[in-house]
Amino acid sequence: MNVKHITIIGLGLIGGSLGLDFKEIGGSQVVVTGIDRDHETLVKAVGCNAVDYSTSDLVEGVKNADIIFLCTPVLQILPIVEKIVPHLKEGTILTDVGSTKGFLAQEIRKILPRGIEYVSGHPMTGREQSGIWAAKRDLFKDKWYILVPEASTSLEAVEEICQVLTWTSARLTTMNIADHEQCGAVISHVPHVAAAALVNLLEMYPDLEDNFKLVGGGFRDTTRIASSNADMWADICLTNAQPITDSLIKLRGLLDEVIGAVQQGDRQAIHHFFKRAKNRRDALIQKTDSHTTL
Amino acid sequence: MNVKHITIIGLGLIGGSLGLDFKEIGGSQVVVTGIDRDHETLVKAVGCNAVDYSTSDLVEGVKNADIIFLCTPVLQILPIVEKIVPHLKEGTILTDVGSTKGFLAQEIRKILPRGIEYVSGHPMTGREQSGIWAAKRDLFKDKWYILVPEASTSLEAVEEICQVLTWTSARLTTMNIADHEQCGAVISHVPHVAAAALVNLLEMYPDLEDNFKLVGGGFRDTTRIASSNADMWADICLTNAQPITDSLIKLRGLLDEVIGAVQQGDRQAIHHFFKRAKNRRDALIQKTDSHTTL
Repeated sequence: MNVKHITIIGLGLIGGSLGLDFKEIGGSQVVVTGIDRDHETLVKAVGCNAVDYSTSDLVEGVKNADIIFLCTPVLQILPIVEKIVPHLKEGTILTDVGSTKGFLAQEIRKILPRGIEYVSGHPMTGREQSGIWAAKRDLFKDKWYILVPEASTSLEAVEEICQVLTWTSARLTTMNIADHEQCGAVISHVPHVAAAALVNLLEMYPDLEDNFKLVGGGFRDTTRIASSNADMWADICLTNAQPITDSLIKLRGLLDEVIGAVQQGDRQAIHHFFKRAKNRRDALIQKTDSHTTL
Repeated sequence: MNVKHITIIGLGLIGGSLGLDFKEIGGSQVVVTGIDRDHETLVKAVGCNAVDYSTSDLVEGVKNADIIFLCTPVLQILPIVEKIVPHLKEGTILTDVGSTKGFLAQEIRKILPRGIEYVSGHPMTGREQSGIWAAKRDLFKDKWYILVPEASTSLEAVEEICQVLTWTSARLTTMNIADHEQCGAVISHVPHVAAAALVNLLEMYPDLEDNFKLVGGGFRDTTRIASSNADMWADICLTNAQPITDSLIKLRGLLDEVIGAVQQGDRQAIHHFFKRAKNRRDALIQKTDSHTTL
């Protein structure tokens, strides 16, 4: 049996957690090399058994790789791919874990040499903490992991990535790029913007500062994802601009609906707004929970 | 030692949970009567030991009460107070658990006879489920419970309510009405509207319906409170209209800030938006957590 050489570039929450699963479940079938520009991260990654070898040298770290997981913020991926492609062996498969896929697919296609494959991927998981110190086993377990193959992607490359990802116990599925981008905007990117906006709203009431200690579980949960990595989210907004602004404008319209109803004292309209949200969310959560127990 | 007669009107999540704590900790010092118009709720409340006696008859249920907890949605409280005041014994203390205080304080003051006290209260806790079936012991434990006494409220009445509330292990504090209303809008009411809006946004993308099963922990947490009781939240919006619309308009301005920055590809502005939210939230959560461990 051939040993698979996997290189993970960017040992943050996602990269580190992938490494932990690969090493634990892949066992002797896999050798994992980790690349990061932060020295402490490299030391920690080896220490916690997320990788076998670590280096800050991109060329050194990728030259023997069968599969490369690109796990940096989205806008750093393209410059990295440009640097490494001349040093890859024939048949190497690149895959990434970025939350937006359209921009990368378009740009990577332009620079990918023949013989190197790219499989676009997106694990639907995360934590509000980031970095290798937040990495953990089973981060992907029972979570969706979306692959977004294009017409030009070889079936063998997709299957190869799927096989490695089974070690994470993620639930694999595929989607086309346009649906992925709009769906991501609606169920993930715009909620992140809204959560950050709810936190930034506090600074507009400096006189109430002392009372904000009263925040309860509602505020805490609603804004949890506002504690996410700002670099990552700035990149997501820039690389999925149109779907995100489209959804933000619609969200603004929904707030206008409530503002108008409250100003007019229209209880029926306000009640309907909350009731249809409750009904839809309860049904959605029930559906996703029943999926989870499959 | 005198036995305290406590009547709880409205045996939902809050009323039911208060009853459970009063009975468990108050023990033989207390007799709890529960009033609700729903028969099944009355049966369940007795069955789960949230009350000693239950009735759907307002007058019957309040005539011996020393303390009455008004635990219905805000807009139902005033009609109930109007009905019961002629039947109360001298010295009865009314208190409520509504999330908005200004409207009630103003209206109740007009109809409260001499010899009956009103102490305005607001427990900062909740669950997305409602009804007696969601009630549980320790719902208030270590959570803030705000009392909003007015100049006309007697100190003895406030102390009496405080004493009973120690059985819930809540953290008692006081606040003035204006601060309470604006603070409530910013840290609770507007997040509820935003959570409901994020759910209602889904209906604007019917073509993506099948993909919404992909919602992850981020969407789930951000919208958790959108599954709350619509009646309760419609009343909150109507009785705290000005502070809520003020905050919603400011929130809309923050969304405009992001929409503009994304459209212009201004990474620095987007990054700053997420970064200042992360910094502020992390500091706030750290502060509230350190309070909790006191």
